[in-house]
Amino acid sequence: MALVFLPALARMAVCGGTHGNELSGVYVVQEMERQWKEKGECAWPIPVTTVLSNPRAVKECRRYIEKDMNRCFNRATLSSPITDSSPYEVRRAHELNNLLGPKGSTDAIDLICDLHNTTANMGLTLIHYTTSDWVTLHICKYLQMTCVSVAIEVGPQPHGVVRADIYTIMKEAVDLTIDWIHKFSSGMVFEGGDVEAFRFIKSVDYPRDPETRTLTAAIHPQLQDRDFCLLKRGDPLFLSFSGETVKYEEEEPLHPFFINEAAYYEKEIAFHLGKKMMLTIPSVQVQKD
Amino acid sequence: MALVFLPALARMAVCGGTHGNELSGVYVVQEMERQWKEKGECAWPIPVTTVLSNPRAVKECRRYIEKDMNRCFNRATLSSPITDSSPYEVRRAHELNNLLGPKGSTDAIDLICDLHNTTANMGLTLIHYTTSDWVTLHICKYLQMTCVSVAIEVGPQPHGVVRADIYTIMKEAVDLTIDWIHKFSSGMVFEGGDVEAFRFIKSVDYPRDPETRTLTAAIHPQLQDRDFCLLKRGDPLFLSFSGETVKYEEEEPLHPFFINEAAYYEKEIAFHLGKKMMLTIPSVQVQKD
Repeated sequence: MALVFLPALARMAVCGGTHGNELSGVYVVQEMERQWKEKGECAWPIPVTTVLSNPRAVKECRRYIEKDMNRCFNRATLSSPITDSSPYEVRRAHELNNLLGPKGSTDAIDLICDLHNTTANMGLTLIHYTTSDWVTLHICKYLQMTCVSVAIEVGPQPHGVVRADIYTIMKEAVDLTIDWIHKFSSGMVFEGGDVEAFRFIKSVDYPRDPETRTLTAAIHPQLQDRDFCLLKRGDPLFLSFSGETVKYEEEEPLHPFFINEAAYYEKEIAFHLGKKMMLTIPSVQVQKD
Repeated sequence: MALVFLPALARMAVCGGTHGNELSGVYVVQEMERQWKEKGECAWPIPVTTVLSNPRAVKECRRYIEKDMNRCFNRATLSSPITDSSPYEVRRAHELNNLLGPKGSTDAIDLICDLHNTTANMGLTLIHYTTSDWVTLHICKYLQMTCVSVAIEVGPQPHGVVRADIYTIMKEAVDLTIDWIHKFSSGMVFEGGDVEAFRFIKSVDYPRDPETRTLTAAIHPQLQDRDFCLLKRGDPLFLSFSGETVKYEEEEPLHPFFINEAAYYEKEIAFHLGKKMMLTIPSVQVQKD
């Protein structure tokens, strides 16, 4: 299998509290800052910047104050000037872009690890926006191999709550990511191979009253908590509040995920549907200077 | 065993959305209003008033807008005049007191069934503020006998989420409560006996940083989800974010509940401790006119 040489990763950032009520990341960042105070540069084998992304939302334990921060890091928003009417999160996104970016420039940090929780039963999930970033896919492969917890179905976490089991899995994943980057920077060859992933196909909304837009059904008990399990024609999707079952009617079997995520009610998403795929990634090694 | 004659219960109310992000009650009330539209007076065997307690908080999917509504129904708040600076929930509490009260008067509704959710793994729990209200204790006994779900440990529900399993248990409990009142009003004798309950003893807070007041530990994985299980000296309580275990040090074994309730972080409550007790209740029958 081909060996691909990739640029070194000099700096990484770990961001928690991008959504202020997703508490595991908030406490992972807090613990890393405590470790930094205690041990200084010996805390990690590589330089790590820790960031509490949305401190006001964390303080109020809300997802966001004025605008979902995850929608503030596009180039249009980052290149528009700040005005008096700019939402808090847009201002904060500009600050973070100064700290960690500018996005797309050679000064930008090499890897951002943005920590989130979901009320869905998705275990430890890594979200990628491309299928050709070998570094993040290798980190994914490394976590799947090393982190025993990845294979275990862990409980979902309510927003506004920190569960020790979920915290521990997240902390372990961050530590392993740092570990991978350190080994990679030290010249280790990471063997290529297959990585299982799910490609987003579309979203499905809840059944709603056509006038009031209020929900008329909840996720069916047979679908609840079964993220990434195959959904086939005839399988139950929703149970209406008066007791009727709504079934999956499409021919193509797909894999649902983000099932019953609290923050997606307002986005009119009951769950996403994805297609399982196998990505083949090459072996990688750091470029020599 | 003694037979106690009690006044009839002419009217009851079912209230959902007292906390706007606890969704099961919101949808139980919505479904009951749909049934009322469909069937009118035939919907239930007794007159039932349905109420969405805090519509603004429901709309924003928040626990409350300005003040926790559960703290607004004391006599001091209800008897103070409304001013321009009165919080929204205090105004709404006055409205509800006009609709369902006045509290303590002979015009007041006979039974209010106020529906809540918790992120703790408490199954179906009935909260009483006295050990001598035979009607509510008899309803409790009736639910324990009839409702198979009561004995099953059902999953906790994140705020801002409706789970069909939790919705179904709540709806079943409301239907059985209506059923009990109907049978009682019709003259049925309900046999007395023993009812298991837990008396509140005290609350325990999370370990916190003495300066910032931020949490330094989460509920220990061995305590998480074990509401109502006996806690003995030496059992783990908390796991700090750096990995140390905090143990239960008291001599007296007690029963924890409301373990890791999202809304109690701001109230500085990690869990409550209670003592198991057996209440003996007399047989009851409705008074004849």
